[in-house]
Order: sequence, then structure tokens, then C-alpha cells
Amino acid sequence: MGAEFDRDIEIESSSEGEYAANLGPGWLVGAGINGGYQLAVIGNALRAASPAKPDPIAVSAYYLSASTPGPATVSIRPIREGGNLSTFAADLSQDGTDRITALATYGDLSRLPDDVRTTAIEPDLPPRGECLPVSMAPPELHKVAPLMSRFDLRLDPACAGWAKGEPSGNGLLQGWIRLHEEREPDPLSLLLVLDALPPVTFDLGMPGWAPTLELSAHVRADPAPGWLKVRHATRNMAGGMFEEDCEVWDSTGRLVAQSRQLARAPRPQA
Amino acid sequence: MGAEFDRDIEIESSSEGEYAANLGPGWLVGAGINGGYQLAVIGNALRAASPAKPDPIAVSAYYLSASTPGPATVSIRPIREGGNLSTFAADLSQDGTDRITALATYGDLSRLPDDVRTTAIEPDLPPRGECLPVSMAPPELHKVAPLMSRFDLRLDPACAGWAKGEPSGNGLLQGWIRLHEEREPDPLSLLLVLDALPPVTFDLGMPGWAPTLELSAHVRADPAPGWLKVRHATRNMAGGMFEEDCEVWDSTGRLVAQSRQLARAPRPQA
Repeated sequence: MGAEFDRDIEIESSSEGEYAANLGPGWLVGAGINGGYQLAVIGNALRAASPAKPDPIAVSAYYLSASTPGPATVSIRPIREGGNLSTFAADLSQDGTDRITALATYGDLSRLPDDVRTTAIEPDLPPRGECLPVSMAPPELHKVAPLMSRFDLRLDPACAGWAKGEPSGNGLLQGWIRLHEEREPDPLSLLLVLDALPPVTFDLGMPGWAPTLELSAHVRADPAPGWLKVRHATRNMAGGMFEEDCEVWDSTGRLVAQSRQLARAPRPQA
Repeated sequence: MGAEFDRDIEIESSSEGEYAANLGPGWLVGAGINGGYQLAVIGNALRAASPAKPDPIAVSAYYLSASTPGPATVSIRPIREGGNLSTFAADLSQDGTDRITALATYGDLSRLPDDVRTTAIEPDLPPRGECLPVSMAPPELHKVAPLMSRFDLRLDPACAGWAKGEPSGNGLLQGWIRLHEEREPDPLSLLLVLDALPPVTFDLGMPGWAPTLELSAHVRADPAPGWLKVRHATRNMAGGMFEEDCEVWDSTGRLVAQSRQLARAPRPQA
């Protein structure tokens, strides 16, 4: 029933303001569940709690501890109900341990005015056939990061030198992305896409896991069907942390989502 | 007794997790109190609640309603105390009405590793003597926006054409900023500086107030004494909203703070 992504973000109302979720093992990266997927699970519970304003407009998540596959609870507390926007607090926990605490403002993307004066430039990517499918990564990598098998991701080869030991040092990753089963993008899947790629620090020659401390996402439009372009960049690696900015563009060339996260730099590997 | 900024962000512990503040009328812009100043008030209460980790590392604030001069309460709830970082929820209210709800991670900036691999380029500003001091703005503007008299702000004339009715359309504002009374910058004053300038939409030819919906701030280093450079830019004005990215650079040329906010576009003026 439905695509894998929809099955895996399913939530069930368990009591007033509480939703039961089940974090799928397919979304693991190393020892923890991917942060973007968890944002989509929280986003789905918020949608259930906000039927008249079903779309995430802004979501800020603080990642407290690594989630593991299995049951989780999303607790939602309404903070302010406005005319066009409502704000909520949301927490994702497992066995009584907080994994993520978040704030979110929800609205209705279909009711926003249709002005577009974006000056940002859509990433200029080579055709998908000339990009590097992550499905071609070594099987041992897929075993450690089953997340990589959840979508079709084609990286711009100009930003993927790190895959053969030649990082550019620019701090930039970009590519094409699409969920499997032709599951078309929507505001919830954008929350995943904003944090689904390898850390941009790979392109700085720093392999390894880069745990997110905080991520704020803005969903700016309902995405059109088809492939998405996604672009990650960092400009301030310092003090053992870095910011990572993400943009997602839909198939019509519209900038549909943006995020910024603060993450810990990967520990130097032995 | 201290500089104006310090007096105006003063808080007093009133009960467990509650702090009394008094929002100064000098921080008004139109009918509401400036968001950056309020972030500094919340940041000061968090500092009191987190003595061992006194510095804001990440703060995400959702602005719920406009604050007015006078008493306010900041309520703080610890969420997770970690080894190097602690996460809190914080709410600012007036007369029982929520003004701001926030999440924050605090740490100790002096204990971060000293690596700096920033690739961002420091803004190239004309000397301060060639910039436009906002103190020269018409008196009627100062009356509506007393905030403008709280600091010495010198705008880069290349981004200030809007002041004479010639906005560049680039969506960029930058300049020099310093608090009065030679009050040197610190992590709390950076929270103010990240949201102290006129909206970047002035440079798009859209005058008027642009209410912040969400703002996430990252303080990346303790700023050195002296003047700060501040840069605001937007790239995605669409659907009646825009993102505004801010960078703050200290006198040694270090990128010490970054923020992104989502704000409502100003309403067209009659």
C-alpha cells in the first residue's frame, strides 16, 4: 500500500497529541537513523495534528541522540494557531529517551500568493546519464548505509572527486534525486531530501559521519512531479563545526526548499 | 552601571526556570520590539540557566506575536544536558501571551578547537568614513524606529540606493556596526546584530516591515573587540515570503555568527 517512503513515515494516533511511528531499518546510516527521514516522520505527525494547514513551512529540529530502528513516539503540543499559520512543538522519543526536539510552523502551500522573484540560480547539472549513481557504490558501503538504497541519487561528477580520493576542497555536493517507485515529491519528502546526501565535508577531504546538531528547513512551494535537483554547500568549517546549506529545486526550475544545519565536523579517522 | 545594551537585556530569576525581563522602549521598530534584541534577552536568560556552558551555539526562534515595551517573562526548560553542549526550550511571554518560542543549544566557545577552514569571503566594505551612518536618517524615521539610535550602523553606499529611492534589486545590505558606549561585541550582542538591520527587502524596492516567522542563529566564535561587519542577503523571494541570510564578521576577519530567517514579505504600501 503506497511507496516505501509513505509506509515508513506512517504514524498512528495513540493518545491526545501522541503518535506512534516505526523507524525503518532501511534509513540507517552507520549506527543511527538518517535525520532527514526522521524530520519527515515528525512532519507527518504534524500534518495529522494540523489538518487545515497541512504543509510544513518552517521546521527547526535539534538532534539530541541517535535513533535506532523500531518504535518511536512523536508528541505534539500546539503553541499558537493563527489565521494562515500554526506553530507547534514536536518531540520524537524512543523508550522515553528524547531523540529530537523540534518547533514547526505549518500552513497551506496551495494558498500562498504566486509571486516568484527568486534571484538564486538553479544548479547547472550534467544530464542524469552523465552523473554518478550512488547505486554503483561498493556493496560494503550499502551495507553500512542502507539509506543509499532508498532513492535514486545521481551525483554531479564535478563534486564527487572524493569518491576516488580526490576531494575538490570546495565544500559542494550536488546532484539529481528521486524516490523509488516513482513516488513523486511532496512537502514531506522534501524534508527527507534536505538531509539525505552524504555530508558535504566529504568534498573537503573529511570522510566520516557528521552528526547534525540543529537543522532548520523552509518548504517554499509544493514541488512539481519529477526529478529534483539538490545542492549542499558549506562555507564556514571552524571550531570543530560547520554549517551546511541545502537547496532543492523541482523539475520546473523552482527553488522549493531550503535548509541550513549546524553539524559537528567528522572526527579524523584512524 | 554597564552599557545600555547590558541594562536592557538584564534578567532576574523569579522562580525555578523563570526569569523576569523588561523590554526597553528604545528597541522598538514601528509597533513591535526588534527580534534580535529579544533574542539577546532570551539568550541572557539561557546563560543564567546554563552557567557551565554560557554561550549560545545555536538558537532557533519562532516569532508568535509582536512584543511591546515593558515586563516580559522568559521561561526555560532544560531538554538535554550533554558533556559539551546542553539543549533548552525557552519561551518569552508578556501578560500570559506567547511572543517567542525557541530552542537553543549552549556550550563554551572558549573550549572549541581552534581550526578555521572558512571559505566564505569577508565582505569588502568601504572605510567607515565613506559609509552612510543611519544616524543621518530623517528625525521622523528615528521617531518610528528608535532601534536605529541603539548602535552606530554605517551602511555600504553600494547597497543603500533604496535610501534615495534607487534600490539595486540585488537583495543585499551590508555595513559596519558597533554598539554605543564602546560596548564590545560578545556572543549575546551577536544575537542582536544578526537581526538589527533594516529588512533586506528594502534593497528589492519593497519598503515596510517584514515580520520574522523563524530565525535560526549560529554563534561560531567569541568575537574580537572592535567594529563588526554585517551582511544580509536574500535569494528566494516567493509566495509572499523570503529567506534572509546574515553573516557577522569580527575585526580580525573571522566569521563569528550566521543566521537564516524566514520572513513575510512587506505588504505593498498605499
